[in-house]
Amino acid sequence: MIFTQKLQQAWATSNSMLTVGLDPDPQRFPAELQGRSDAIFEFCRAIIDVTAPYACAIKPQIAYFSAQRAEDQLEALCNYILEHHPGLPIVLDAKRGDIGSTAEQYAREAFERYQADAVTVSPYMGFDTLEPYLSWKSKGVIILCRTSNTGGSDLQFIESADGTPLYLHVASLAAEKWNTSGQCALVVGATFPEEIARVRARVGDMPLLIPGIGAQGGDIPATVKAGRNSQGTGMMINSSRAILYASGGDNWREAAAQAARATRDAINAAR
Amino acid sequence: MIFTQKLQQAWATSNSMLTVGLDPDPQRFPAELQGRSDAIFEFCRAIIDVTAPYACAIKPQIAYFSAQRAEDQLEALCNYILEHHPGLPIVLDAKRGDIGSTAEQYAREAFERYQADAVTVSPYMGFDTLEPYLSWKSKGVIILCRTSNTGGSDLQFIESADGTPLYLHVASLAAEKWNTSGQCALVVGATFPEEIARVRARVGDMPLLIPGIGAQGGDIPATVKAGRNSQGTGMMINSSRAILYASGGDNWREAAAQAARATRDAINAAR
Repeated sequence: MIFTQKLQQAWATSNSMLTVGLDPDPQRFPAELQGRSDAIFEFCRAIIDVTAPYACAIKPQIAYFSAQRAEDQLEALCNYILEHHPGLPIVLDAKRGDIGSTAEQYAREAFERYQADAVTVSPYMGFDTLEPYLSWKSKGVIILCRTSNTGGSDLQFIESADGTPLYLHVASLAAEKWNTSGQCALVVGATFPEEIARVRARVGDMPLLIPGIGAQGGDIPATVKAGRNSQGTGMMINSSRAILYASGGDNWREAAAQAARATRDAINAAR
Repeated sequence: MIFTQKLQQAWATSNSMLTVGLDPDPQRFPAELQGRSDAIFEFCRAIIDVTAPYACAIKPQIAYFSAQRAEDQLEALCNYILEHHPGLPIVLDAKRGDIGSTAEQYAREAFERYQADAVTVSPYMGFDTLEPYLSWKSKGVIILCRTSNTGGSDLQFIESADGTPLYLHVASLAAEKWNTSGQCALVVGATFPEEIARVRARVGDMPLLIPGIGAQGGDIPATVKAGRNSQGTGMMINSSRAILYASGGDNWREAAAQAARATRDAINAAR
């Protein structure tokens, strides 16, 4: 199924715009998983099972797997999601960006090896570095626009002569030039609601992936009011650590489910 | 050894500013390696052995390994370089870019798992996304500035009110703010020699990684004249496919060595 359709169905089915981010840090795993060779898989699998009813997407962050030599566990997780939660889109958070011949390889990594429904990419190298992902017609390409970290303004706030900051140039390029096939989405951080609104004003109903709530401190009501599209949806609002590590005790599964449900409900209350 | 020192020694020892890029594409491997499960390792190992005398660095492009589920072969290659060519810096071409907590994982991937001497990164998310790499004090951090692809100008040519294009903002930020520990270098494509010169004018003797000669068509004499620093060095001029696939026949090793030597000599002739 095409990513954007799968996402729309997930918004409706789960009545949720929450995306659960998988940033598995073995040092923070519960005691029962410590020392197991498949701890990353088992931790993430449990998180997925208990949070899936409250989520519109799952976003594994590949760095956490690569640093642990755990690509095989990420593959197994993606297979698991496809088998047991087939309606849940997989967003591979990789923020890739390289020339076309290399981007073809990264696209194979994301879409063939991990079977992701969408991948995050960097716009710094321009459109020809995004085309290899877009040639996978059923897949989503989620482009960094305004990021949630403090240093995000170093480049993204540089203004052109007419006063337009770089991140709005990216939004306009994505909406007006790059999104010819409806596969594009943008990353806009929840830490800057007024900038989410400026991006939304430029991109129509395009989906936005919004990190920065939870551990990074973004405000949910302000984020939702700024980011919703004309359908009242249009967002993948990501929470990672606040859900994964909601409890370090024996009740970690229940605590994660509760955190996901509460976040989903807080998002819906602000719609 | 600190990356910049190792690079300086390699420039002197091999009398070369050629970087050999490893973009292993199994479909282009010679017949003798077809079908072998360790073909990527064996192909790259042979290329390294025959080109090392003419190179100042080896630059594996990680996408080519990840798309093939060959991270283990990349690890083995890095171990091989450290053991058999200990003076040759390893530049992991990964173009990573993410928030601090994730960048810490990518830094572990590059510097701990692969034992790279330097890694390429994207500046789009700003300085706090580069700091986790810089905290590895012996390592180099090579920041995208002006890339060699046609779409590079989509963002990199956007000018601020004073007429400065984005890539020169990146060069200035790197030279004046981010490079406090001497670990930074920049990526500037050989396809734009006049822009290499503008970057060089802003960054003093900072090393430049210069892709775009060979298959991408950059001009070697113009590149060298634009990019050399006050020592007459300061460059890692990369060639990948033109060396790796210099011959598809039985003489592939000799052809690769010959291509590397000829490129090294062409670079030196222009100094």
